[in-house]
Amino acid sequence: MIAAETTIFDEIESNVRGYCRSWPTIFTTAQGAWLRDEAGRDFLDFFAGAGALNYGHNNPILKSALIDYIAGDGITHGLDMSTVAKRKLLETVRDTLLAPRGLDYKVQFPGPTGANAVEAALKLARKVTGRQTILSFTNAFHGMTLGALSVTGNAMKRAGAGVPLNHATPMPYDGYFDGTTTDFLWMERVLDDSSSGLDRPAAVIVETVQGEGGVNLARDEWLRHLASLCAARGILLIVDDVQMGCGRTGPFFSFESAGITPDIVTLSKSIGGYGLPMALVLLKPEHDVWSPGEHNGTFRGNNPSFVTAQVALEHYWSDDVLEKSTLAKGKRVATALEEIAVAVPGVSTRGRGLVHGLVFDDASQAGKVCQVAFERGLLTETSGASDEVVKLLPPLTIADDELDQGLHILSDSVETVCS
Amino acid sequence: MIAAETTIFDEIESNVRGYCRSWPTIFTTAQGAWLRDEAGRDFLDFFAGAGALNYGHNNPILKSALIDYIAGDGITHGLDMSTVAKRKLLETVRDTLLAPRGLDYKVQFPGPTGANAVEAALKLARKVTGRQTILSFTNAFHGMTLGALSVTGNAMKRAGAGVPLNHATPMPYDGYFDGTTTDFLWMERVLDDSSSGLDRPAAVIVETVQGEGGVNLARDEWLRHLASLCAARGILLIVDDVQMGCGRTGPFFSFESAGITPDIVTLSKSIGGYGLPMALVLLKPEHDVWSPGEHNGTFRGNNPSFVTAQVALEHYWSDDVLEKSTLAKGKRVATALEEIAVAVPGVSTRGRGLVHGLVFDDASQAGKVCQVAFERGLLTETSGASDEVVKLLPPLTIADDELDQGLHILSDSVETVCS
Amino acid sequence: MIAAETTIFDEIESNVRGYCRSWPTIFTTAQGAWLRDEAGRDFLDFFAGAGALNYGHNNPILKSALIDYIAGDGITHGLDMSTVAKRKLLETVRDTLLAPRGLDYKVQFPGPTGANAVEAALKLARKVTGRQTILSFTNAFHGMTLGALSVTGNAMKRAGAGVPLNHATPMPYDGYFDGTTTDFLWMERVLDDSSSGLDRPAAVIVETVQGEGGVNLARDEWLRHLASLCAARGILLIVDDVQMGCGRTGPFFSFESAGITPDIVTLSKSIGGYGLPMALVLLKPEHDVWSPGEHNGTFRGNNPSFVTAQVALEHYWSDDVLEKSTLAKGKRVATALEEIAVAVPGVSTRGRGLVHGLVFDDASQAGKVCQVAFERGLLTETSGASDEVVKLLPPLTIADDELDQGLHILSDSVETVCS
Amino acid sequence: MIAAETTIFDEIESNVRGYCRSWPTIFTTAQGAWLRDEAGRDFLDFFAGAGALNYGHNNPILKSALIDYIAGDGITHGLDMSTVAKRKLLETVRDTLLAPRGLDYKVQFPGPTGANAVEAALKLARKVTGRQTILSFTNAFHGMTLGALSVTGNAMKRAGAGVPLNHATPMPYDGYFDGTTTDFLWMERVLDDSSSGLDRPAAVIVETVQGEGGVNLARDEWLRHLASLCAARGILLIVDDVQMGCGRTGPFFSFESAGITPDIVTLSKSIGGYGLPMALVLLKPEHDVWSPGEHNGTFRGNNPSFVTAQVALEHYWSDDVLEKSTLAKGKRVATALEEIAVAVPGVSTRGRGLVHGLVFDDASQAGKVCQVAFERGLLTETSGASDEVVKLLPPLTIADDELDQGLHILSDSVETVCS
Repeated sequence: MIAAETTIFDEIESNVRGYCRSWPTIFTTAQGAWLRDEAGRDFLDFFAGAGALNYGHNNPILKSALIDYIAGDGITHGLDMSTVAKRKLLETVRDTLLAPRGLDYKVQFPGPTGANAVEAALKLARKVTGRQTILSFTNAFHGMTLGALSVTGNAMKRAGAGVPLNHATPMPYDGYFDGTTTDFLWMERVLDDSSSGLDRPAAVIVETVQGEGGVNLARDEWLRHLASLCAARGILLIVDDVQMGCGRTGPFFSFESAGITPDIVTLSKSIGGYGLPMALVLLKPEHDVWSPGEHNGTFRGNNPSFVTAQVALEHYWSDDVLEKSTLAKGKRVATALEEIAVAVPGVSTRGRGLVHGLVFDDASQAGKVCQVAFERGLLTETSGASDEVVKLLPPLTIADDELDQGLHILSDSVETVCS
Repeated sequence: MIAAETTIFDEIESNVRGYCRSWPTIFTTAQGAWLRDEAGRDFLDFFAGAGALNYGHNNPILKSALIDYIAGDGITHGLDMSTVAKRKLLETVRDTLLAPRGLDYKVQFPGPTGANAVEAALKLARKVTGRQTILSFTNAFHGMTLGALSVTGNAMKRAGAGVPLNHATPMPYDGYFDGTTTDFLWMERVLDDSSSGLDRPAAVIVETVQGEGGVNLARDEWLRHLASLCAARGILLIVDDVQMGCGRTGPFFSFESAGITPDIVTLSKSIGGYGLPMALVLLKPEHDVWSPGEHNGTFRGNNPSFVTAQVALEHYWSDDVLEKSTLAKGKRVATALEEIAVAVPGVSTRGRGLVHGLVFDDASQAGKVCQVAFERGLLTETSGASDEVVKLLPPLTIADDELDQGLHILSDSVETVCS
Repeated sequence: MIAAETTIFDEIESNVRGYCRSWPTIFTTAQGAWLRDEAGRDFLDFFAGAGALNYGHNNPILKSALIDYIAGDGITHGLDMSTVAKRKLLETVRDTLLAPRGLDYKVQFPGPTGANAVEAALKLARKVTGRQTILSFTNAFHGMTLGALSVTGNAMKRAGAGVPLNHATPMPYDGYFDGTTTDFLWMERVLDDSSSGLDRPAAVIVETVQGEGGVNLARDEWLRHLASLCAARGILLIVDDVQMGCGRTGPFFSFESAGITPDIVTLSKSIGGYGLPMALVLLKPEHDVWSPGEHNGTFRGNNPSFVTAQVALEHYWSDDVLEKSTLAKGKRVATALEEIAVAVPGVSTRGRGLVHGLVFDDASQAGKVCQVAFERGLLTETSGASDEVVKLLPPLTIADDELDQGLHILSDSVETVCS
Repeated sequence: MIAAETTIFDEIESNVRGYCRSWPTIFTTAQGAWLRDEAGRDFLDFFAGAGALNYGHNNPILKSALIDYIAGDGITHGLDMSTVAKRKLLETVRDTLLAPRGLDYKVQFPGPTGANAVEAALKLARKVTGRQTILSFTNAFHGMTLGALSVTGNAMKRAGAGVPLNHATPMPYDGYFDGTTTDFLWMERVLDDSSSGLDRPAAVIVETVQGEGGVNLARDEWLRHLASLCAARGILLIVDDVQMGCGRTGPFFSFESAGITPDIVTLSKSIGGYGLPMALVLLKPEHDVWSPGEHNGTFRGNNPSFVTAQVALEHYWSDDVLEKSTLAKGKRVATALEEIAVAVPGVSTRGRGLVHGLVFDDASQAGKVCQVAFERGLLTETSGASDEVVKLLPPLTIADDELDQGLHILSDSVETVCS
């Protein structure tokens, strides 16, 4: 449709590029839940930077603080030097995030990506326990570097490693057998059988909701069971909250409703608030066995993102307004999706907070729905092993009427595709 | 010295933090070659964000473009969607960087860190060749994620992996035997001996100057020899130009003077210009065998950094002014360091462009010199296997008198420590 | 009891020695189901060289052929040269073993141990498929070399590797969940889910009865299901018949009753007939992709064992007498064990052909029973993850009254220990 | 030549068979240095079961003891039970082998193959040190199981693994650079450089003469240097004496002339004396950290071979007659080969004791020489990375006139091929 203008991308950008193929246009600006392209077309964003833009595009509160910081020549690139911006962030993490939730964590600044936080978490778990194996779950996604990829499920992405991915074993995620077996039947049995052939693991890494894996939900009781089985066996529990943390499911941490306290938590995507690269690893003080510099990274001190992270925490997480609003909006989405599911055969829905999926028995329909929705001004993407799920991740700050507008486009698109 | 104020860092920042221990103060702002701390003390920066700030802190030209872009609500977080900022960057890469140098590369946007660029490069080399082994070099540093760490030399950092690091074998870097053996004696022999026990490698990864490894320099003829031995055997040559690229050695790419054309080039650190996270992988078109999305990363579309990257390329690399100035300033540094080396027993020097090392026979002196220099207002860090080298990486944009001022502090510090 | 005489063993034999600790005496001669020690005491053997002596100790028919061969200066050490002894063996394998069963296999002579046969089988499966992963089963035992150990379950033995054991994943064996889940629920799901995180395997390796693992039995329908799930997915099926083959379960191959045809079969232990080292790998002709010498071994041509192997096949497997007798004796054993199980609380039994287990809820009793039985002149050993099973592997050629005598000792020993 | 008779081998023996291709006939009997085929042709054996028949085929002294043992119903298959045969062997090992040489080793009986001894040695070294990496040497050969293969050089055999071979790194063997570099220049440098990228190894495994690798000789001073560099760094030294031990180079252990005491020694091939499968691991008492049964193997108690091993040690190693004779015969061979080397351009020779190589600049000639020699009644095989070496391993017990006869055939064959 805009082939003439995409020349340079076709010409020299690697074939690895992806989203630009689903959304063949050139974006210029963005505000809140909206992106605009060069042709002046506006797109409602139910994708939110794959969960990195929970507070919307170019959120004015954060933007103002960011510009002030840059204009005032605040430290930009700080590695792990102490800076005023970092101090303020750490204080806010402590006072707004940890203390009110009764959490006692130390904070590590890994490289500014989720994969790097995961790599750091895996290293740490191995160092703490002296063991190598990590248990991951079916349909998990944790990143694309060699360590993170070893605990990721997708066969195409795994094959990209070019070397065998070792030291990790998948276990069935909640609901993998549709409730026909007892929870953790295989996992507990194999852990407690000294002749099972599974080496005793250092840690289990889990997402409370598997976004990339198809919006699969772990129940609170399943998470509690997992936490207690780990605790009973001296296995560390890592919750990868890169996509589901920062309020995506309602509370700041996605594991709050389960009432568990992971040994290690990874955060990235929306933790910076403004969509700038940043990541954190939270670890129980007794696990802080790192030597200075044992894990590092050039961009681990991206101070402009510390500024927006701090303001976001202060503004959105000093009270429960956002959390309640997310849950309310989530219900609005759920209702709309259930209506679709009832109306259209072969479609079902699942979700929590503001992450929802529309699941198509005929996987090819999911992609078509996203394509039609794009043409009608709505950005959504598919997920799941067969790309059979239309995944909805609108900004948490989206207005109700925007939500309705997007859900309306979605509903129409489903009708177009499925009838 | 400022113990009272560091409380929050001691309290909740992980033990893994490093630079804040060498430089025990809290920085607030920065400009050009200077950082300022809360107490109002100014520090001259001969460290430049470990090479991420080649154009200085908060470079005004880039800053202005950055603020304009943010203020105008330009796309912040874009994954690999096409954006106006990305188009402009790609055009500038093509017209300013590649075409004038006769280079034909495709451009991949991996996650925004050097380690991620290295992980992508290793994956690609393995996919292209169908082989697993990577040859790296003694004292190499390529990053902290599992793949990048496997080709990194440092034993402490390697041990942090917690699992054996496989599929990689170190080879002697240029000068490893002080010229007592023929270049590549071992490497060529072992590659051409079908019974050597070394599996045929997918690629060789090399830094033209090993910054973290102790400012070890590879001669141009050594690099040419390396390139031709790889080419003759169907082994891909990856130049990791994360630290030495972007003009650090004079020309934009550190391998230009050798006249070689690597199969894959990794760029990060100063590629963004302003110190914001960003990385690129350049790859020969015939190697662009990626499937869409086969390697990805949430922050691969850090558009504000695309803006500053583009302005930096346009401003500093449309002519040869910066390159010539870097070489001239490099001579200034070399001269000053040679004077120190001549005057102080047990001290020698080596370097190229604006990366230089002052090497101490007694390794403990190097750390002391950095400490004394810090107290006198100069930031430098050590490198090398035993931290025996004071490494100098001043911004390329530093003024001659600033350079002299720093060199003077350094000279005095050496005198203090070594006499 | 005979401490004075064991000096040299204590003095210079490595701590790794095992059986001599359970049976603290020094054996001199053996015949049929009997061993004699230096003190002239006779022991009835319900252990049979861990299944390597199915035809009894120093079987006179084989002994005569062996002595003739040696006396006649037949080739002793032949690598894989063609010899008369090997020709005769291959002809008998074809005519007595394969043709009557409608099996079309090629025959490989690996090194003369079960582990070596398993290593060869795994290599071949990887070469045929171009994949790396092997699926093994909980409580499996396949050997102690690095490849064989990777598919073995026992944690103590695995830890002995000293390196992580990769490229293998355990699956639940038949009965692992006591029938509470559908067969292969996890295995089929994880194989067919392209996002499960389990890399597509080259092969599945299975024992039809797990001897070392605790006399766990796979049902015929479970084996058929396994064979068909492998066939449907292009995964090779390897039956490790090292312990259960050569008639242990009744028919020559333990998988005959299931009616399946594995892609690869490993044989060792009793294949040589006389207890001399020997092993075979049987492979479907279409999988014979070996290059000459790609797998070898100095002792792969142990011709004296070829002679006894040939005579054993000819004598015992030209008709169904042995098979029927084994099944009949097996019933005799089963009946006796069931009587014990009925009489003694906390004891149960399972078995097939002439491999049976007496399972103790209180694992420590199993070891005590073996100890008491030894003192009363019966050799048995424990197996299972917690050594909770007394495993019975009498020679197939044992007489009924010998069998009764041993079962009587066993019954008495159980009574002594458990009451 | 005898195609009609080889049918069964072609029909059902796997393609992996090797020697039968070089020597296309069917052997029946053997005595001393001679094999006879079905057609009644006699072949002089300069190959000796790849070094497993140092005392000749069917040595009458051993044969008599073997037949007596079998006829007397001595224990055949003993696992690691204590037996009279084993006791006698251990006593003889202590009194004849160890004590006179001032060696203090404990004795482990692994599975009866060289590969199994190597696997046990590598496991033990890793357990003792808690490290994973093993250093091996270029052109090494240690066996075909996964662990042994990882320290083997040959690319074709390595590729057969089907998985990457890890935890091992090759180092240059003595003479690898034809004396142009200092001994151990690379190895010592890389071990002592904490930033070299080579993980600290558990052990070094070395052959004093590389038989399969092309009859490459390590000088005594090189071995002493190796032993002392290992000792100084807490790295275990494993001498794999599977092929070069048992007198092949003159003294029983091939490392005796160097005056070193390895931490671990592997023995197999000729240790059993008669060519029956058997292997030993000798280990310093302080390294005997095995748990009972941590490494095992069904055929580790091949008692008939213990008998012949014991008699061979007693008969051949109670004095220095055999050692002196081997050295004298070795000189006879060396002289004859040097004459060939002088006479024929492109041919050189090297060797020690009774292992010698005739090296052809044109590798294809080596194979042709073996083929012509076979046709003229002499068995020899090639070795080396390119099969460029005719390797001579005659029985140590060969008579001088037999030696001359074989050398004459060889000389004529070289003349035929090279002129």
